[in-house]
Amino acid sequence: MTYCVGLKIDRGLVFMSDTRTNAGIDSISTFRKMHVWEKPGERVVVLMSAGNLATTQAVVSLLDERMKAVKDRTPTVLATPSMFQTARLVGDTVKEVIADSTPAGERADSYFNASFIVGGQIRGSAPRLFLIYPEGNFIESTDDTPFFQVGETKYGKPIIVRAYDRTMSFAETVKLLMVSFDSTLKSNLSVGLPLDLLFYENDTFRVALNKRIGHDDPYYRTVSDGWSNALKLAFKSLPDFPE
Amino acid sequence: MTYCVGLKIDRGLVFMSDTRTNAGIDSISTFRKMHVWEKPGERVVVLMSAGNLATTQAVVSLLDERMKAVKDRTPTVLATPSMFQTARLVGDTVKEVIADSTPAGERADSYFNASFIVGGQIRGSAPRLFLIYPEGNFIESTDDTPFFQVGETKYGKPIIVRAYDRTMSFAETVKLLMVSFDSTLKSNLSVGLPLDLLFYENDTFRVALNKRIGHDDPYYRTVSDGWSNALKLAFKSLPDFPE
Repeated sequence: MTYCVGLKIDRGLVFMSDTRTNAGIDSISTFRKMHVWEKPGERVVVLMSAGNLATTQAVVSLLDERMKAVKDRTPTVLATPSMFQTARLVGDTVKEVIADSTPAGERADSYFNASFIVGGQIRGSAPRLFLIYPEGNFIESTDDTPFFQVGETKYGKPIIVRAYDRTMSFAETVKLLMVSFDSTLKSNLSVGLPLDLLFYENDTFRVALNKRIGHDDPYYRTVSDGWSNALKLAFKSLPDFPE
Repeated sequence: MTYCVGLKIDRGLVFMSDTRTNAGIDSISTFRKMHVWEKPGERVVVLMSAGNLATTQAVVSLLDERMKAVKDRTPTVLATPSMFQTARLVGDTVKEVIADSTPAGERADSYFNASFIVGGQIRGSAPRLFLIYPEGNFIESTDDTPFFQVGETKYGKPIIVRAYDRTMSFAETVKLLMVSFDSTLKSNLSVGLPLDLLFYENDTFRVALNKRIGHDDPYYRTVSDGWSNALKLAFKSLPDFPE
């Protein structure tokens, strides 16, 4: 499994993903699930993936290869005219890869499924954030639903639902994501360190920070230990059930 | 879906279940998922169920009917010699009901699946807590794994993992379950109020409290509102990410 979150705040976009992939409990590897295409000053596109690793890798490779094949009729991630067209390009590529993996004449098998979060900004329009389904169609984040999760989403959702606020700073947003990831890591073996963190500030058209966070990361350690204690104190602060 | 938790503490057993059942998003009903068989002074058996409602109701009805059919060779929930035999009786009944529901000659279809938590105490032995799988086999709680969840388990797990302590009082345990259920209720429409709460104190052989908790319950309201605030304060107490 996997856990990835893309979150929109007033100041920009924040992305976090884990790096664990597993095919059964005895076949565990580390793979980067966050991919960035950047043309500084013009566009930043971030893609995070969950699901069948063969599918997600094929999608990323196809998106990459198109940039090299000059004659390809499909526009590349670095040439799409808008983020909407970028999401469509990713969606079409997902459909193509899943159709290729599926035995001829049968319906797409859920075994090859993958979901994606795509976000970024292209000069001339606002930053946008999309969730792309295995079927290739997609939805966009709104003020009502300012974040998307893919993968093992349930453990880390309650804290995001409660603590998210669009006026948050990057530093607070990273804290929120760290807590959400830490809750997931503590509950599910299929999500693992290190984490990839990226943030993009509106209208800068370059990545502000792209950092890998491992076991030894002092801020991760502070949040992980601190959150356990803070949670216990919060729990203590509530009145007990009146028997 | 459903959310039920059975939890063992030094002082006894605590059970909580929601009451929402749904067959699709437009067919929502309220059903009790907690069932109690009590012979005061001799035994208390509590059963909570998640899964196909036809299956879980049939299991409970069969367990009930056996008490009336005097000649039935299977011992009833009120006559099993031990909690282990009680768990086995429930497991066998689950297998029977699922086999009955399944088209002849086919393997049991997961569509009829149901899971159960069974706990209680019979005079002469210690209180015990079991998780019964749809296949009819089961596991028992231990000091390492002192609680079982069935249904929509993920949202409410992180707080239990962190705040559970076997020396807790009943009042603290109910607070913990309330927080766990509130996190689930806020994240998933298929889990709904009212909740059923029961606690059993070791070696009393009678139910100490069996209470339904609705929207208006003042303690539920206190925990639900208080937890949001306490969580926000806990979150604020952690240092922000050093940019």
